[in-house]
Amino acid sequence: MYQVIKSKFNALKNNKIFELVVVAVIILSALEIGAKTFQLPESAISITYILDTFITVFFLVELTIRFIADDDKKQFFKKGWNIFDSLVVAISLIPIDDSEMALLARLVRVFRVLRMVSVVPELRVLINSLIKALPQLGYVVLLMFIIFYIYAAIGSFVFNSINPKLWGDIAISMLTLFRIMTFEDWTDIQYETMEVYPMSWIFYLTFIFFTAFAFLNMVIGIVVSVMEKEQALLYVSNEPSMTELQTEIKELKALVNQLVTNQNKL
Amino acid sequence: MYQVIKSKFNALKNNKIFELVVVAVIILSALEIGAKTFQLPESAISITYILDTFITVFFLVELTIRFIADDDKKQFFKKGWNIFDSLVVAISLIPIDDSEMALLARLVRVFRVLRMVSVVPELRVLINSLIKALPQLGYVVLLMFIIFYIYAAIGSFVFNSINPKLWGDIAISMLTLFRIMTFEDWTDIQYETMEVYPMSWIFYLTFIFFTAFAFLNMVIGIVVSVMEKEQALLYVSNEPSMTELQTEIKELKALVNQLVTNQNKL
Amino acid sequence: MYQVIKSKFNALKNNKIFELVVVAVIILSALEIGAKTFQLPESAISITYILDTFITVFFLVELTIRFIADDDKKQFFKKGWNIFDSLVVAISLIPIDDSEMALLARLVRVFRVLRMVSVVPELRVLINSLIKALPQLGYVVLLMFIIFYIYAAIGSFVFNSINPKLWGDIAISMLTLFRIMTFEDWTDIQYETMEVYPMSWIFYLTFIFFTAFAFLNMVIGIVVSVMEKEQALLYVSNEPSMTELQTEIKELKALVNQLVTNQNKL
Amino acid sequence: MYQVIKSKFNALKNNKIFELVVVAVIILSALEIGAKTFQLPESAISITYILDTFITVFFLVELTIRFIADDDKKQFFKKGWNIFDSLVVAISLIPIDDSEMALLARLVRVFRVLRMVSVVPELRVLINSLIKALPQLGYVVLLMFIIFYIYAAIGSFVFNSINPKLWGDIAISMLTLFRIMTFEDWTDIQYETMEVYPMSWIFYLTFIFFTAFAFLNMVIGIVVSVMEKEQALLYVSNEPSMTELQTEIKELKALVNQLVTNQNKL
Repeated sequence: MYQVIKSKFNALKNNKIFELVVVAVIILSALEIGAKTFQLPESAISITYILDTFITVFFLVELTIRFIADDDKKQFFKKGWNIFDSLVVAISLIPIDDSEMALLARLVRVFRVLRMVSVVPELRVLINSLIKALPQLGYVVLLMFIIFYIYAAIGSFVFNSINPKLWGDIAISMLTLFRIMTFEDWTDIQYETMEVYPMSWIFYLTFIFFTAFAFLNMVIGIVVSVMEKEQALLYVSNEPSMTELQTEIKELKALVNQLVTNQNKL
Repeated sequence: MYQVIKSKFNALKNNKIFELVVVAVIILSALEIGAKTFQLPESAISITYILDTFITVFFLVELTIRFIADDDKKQFFKKGWNIFDSLVVAISLIPIDDSEMALLARLVRVFRVLRMVSVVPELRVLINSLIKALPQLGYVVLLMFIIFYIYAAIGSFVFNSINPKLWGDIAISMLTLFRIMTFEDWTDIQYETMEVYPMSWIFYLTFIFFTAFAFLNMVIGIVVSVMEKEQALLYVSNEPSMTELQTEIKELKALVNQLVTNQNKL
Repeated sequence: MYQVIKSKFNALKNNKIFELVVVAVIILSALEIGAKTFQLPESAISITYILDTFITVFFLVELTIRFIADDDKKQFFKKGWNIFDSLVVAISLIPIDDSEMALLARLVRVFRVLRMVSVVPELRVLINSLIKALPQLGYVVLLMFIIFYIYAAIGSFVFNSINPKLWGDIAISMLTLFRIMTFEDWTDIQYETMEVYPMSWIFYLTFIFFTAFAFLNMVIGIVVSVMEKEQALLYVSNEPSMTELQTEIKELKALVNQLVTNQNKL
Repeated sequence: MYQVIKSKFNALKNNKIFELVVVAVIILSALEIGAKTFQLPESAISITYILDTFITVFFLVELTIRFIADDDKKQFFKKGWNIFDSLVVAISLIPIDDSEMALLARLVRVFRVLRMVSVVPELRVLINSLIKALPQLGYVVLLMFIIFYIYAAIGSFVFNSINPKLWGDIAISMLTLFRIMTFEDWTDIQYETMEVYPMSWIFYLTFIFFTAFAFLNMVIGIVVSVMEKEQALLYVSNEPSMTELQTEIKELKALVNQLVTNQNKL
């Protein structure tokens, strides 16, 4: 009997209409979250309570269906997206009346919108490919962090007394440097320190050059790796390779050579 | 007789000089719109009235010629550019004396400049190719919207009390996040919330990273799709493919094999 | 005798040391211009007068050598760089004592630094390739101008009363839109108009999207055209084409076919 | 006996665990530098003194091992990274008690973090490839410098009296132009000069266009050179070239021709 339910649930899980219903409920959940940020009349608030319960129950049922439909129960909780889905559903189940926790409860409900990514396969593919691209950039990110760390250390040693709000310690300095990297009012910071150290523009200009260069390197790295994948796909097409053609021609030559030898014997 | 007029109009429509005259009138229309934004003497204003009437009549005549010259009248209003042209001409015909509607009338006349795109074929190709590129980016745009929506919901829940002008509801928050994405005075917003929540820099930095990453992905997506089209064009050239070469060589080998067999028989 | 001088001057013109001396004098001229922007003691000012005269005379002599060395005197003044060089030298010759014209005289001397581009061949190649790339972008630039013009017209019609300094007429509006395109304090402008027209954020967001999209298109256009040139160079290499290979194989097949026919006759 | 030590040290130098220990000490050194930027209790400060001594001694020992393990002592100090390592270690050895020099001592210790680059091979490769990419960009950088210099000269001649803080001399003007290139509050500068010279927006717009164009050129230059390297690698793969295939087919044709000739003789 369990097998019957399981196969039915599996059919349901892979049903296009089921997927659309789930997406619709997620959108409903997103709209509800959005609506809560506005000033709502009393009646609307009571509706959101009902909606909230409905969405929580729906997600619980949907996750149960997915779990039962799954062939390998042990593997189920090893997949990142399943863990994420279960966590979001589980936390929404915890009853919260305390006003202090109300904010936290709201925040958890926000992450329900992220379920869109775990449900729509095209978005899941997109996110997975983004995550796969990250390790390639590892060393460029490390290099950028070293640049940030060194400049932040210098900044907090030298400029600390000028403006502790911007250069108080190495953590604040790194935040300030990130601001400089985005060109956000960076000259205000520069003019302030240039009054004490007139040559401090060197600090800012070299920092901007180094980060811009490292950033450019990162972008090119991504572009090249994407291109390579594209070209690799092109080469794995069912066209024969040059080497295969050469082999064929060589075999042909051997045959003709044999002909020549035979003829000479005649 | 109608057929004669139709064929004459068709010849006129495809005439290069006719196209140039239309472009000239559109430029005249653009200059008139531009002139109206300046403080004009009484005499100049009366000229613009005459000009306005002339341009409206000219566009009406031109559109009529295009319509009569068209072979398939039913298809005429199914083409986007024709609908656009007809709408712009039709709305300019409505007589407006009311001062309140004067602004609207002026705005409609501004869109006459857009007729440049519907008349110059090169621009029409450009716009069409832009529109064709959009669906490919669909899922990246959706992902970006989800990122915006989640951060806007969090922002309006947590920072609402700090600055309702920036984080009042989810709509205002999304506008604020767009501002942060353009790096426009984003640190002012950050410093404001960091006074209450010192760790809120995580909110801004992760948002900037995610949007920058998604944006980068979008750019790479466009570049790769453009490149692929270019390469596809290169491959569809009348050069024989590797497979064709291989087939030819194989046929050759069969022939030589036959030769060898025949010779052995001798 | 003239021929002797001409050939000597031609040898001089193509001499590497001569080129280096000219570059050195241009650098000297640039340094002098730079020095003049600082507060200088009386003695240094008198030195700059002498330097100025020396540089003017040197450039005059150098240009004369180039002119005499040139084979086709008529063509000499048809080349853009020669006209530019002659103009810079000619204007520096005009004696200026009037204090009002002093600024203009200084400005003309600044353009002497641009002679670096006309003298160093690598820079001349760079500039020429930049100029060649421009026409390809023509229609995208035209499209961008139309976008600017329409938004500037709408802006100056609707927002004129809110802030005439930013939206006074179509010219000022286009400058304001350029500012918005660079994201320079664009939200200040937006918040100002949103107080009167709460939906005016649509104006700014659509403008940013359209210009960003057109700009992206332009960048991709340049990248693709550069890539195509690179690939074209690759294809024009002395490698045989697929078609040539196919022809060879077909000729071979005809030969073998003949063999088979002959053998059958035997 | 020296040879035994040398070979042992060489084995140690190439040991993966040794590399990890060195990296760990560098991270420790980085953390110590970071910790010093915070307000520390007395006890923690005394710990940093001990740490400092330990790190200095460790780096000295490590460098000695590397030096002894090296086969060619003369070449050792010709490698950029070795010189850098030796300098950092040597300067940390100088005892500094004077409070004025304390800042300098701290700064030198910051550069210890850069040793991460000289120790981790992947980062060293990254930096080397960045340095190799620079000369290719030489002429674009020179062109950009000429643009900056000319605009700075014009700016300091014309706008000097308006705001000497921004346009005082050519050096300050170049800094101001760099600020304009990063779009940092550039309209404030523009509006200020437009009050005196209403047409000065031409100065800013042309500058932005020229630098953006030169910058774009630089980026494309890097992308193309990276792509070329990639494609070159693709072509050096062990696939036979078209020319090789053609040679093979020609040889085959010669053989078949011989066959035909022989047959005809029969």
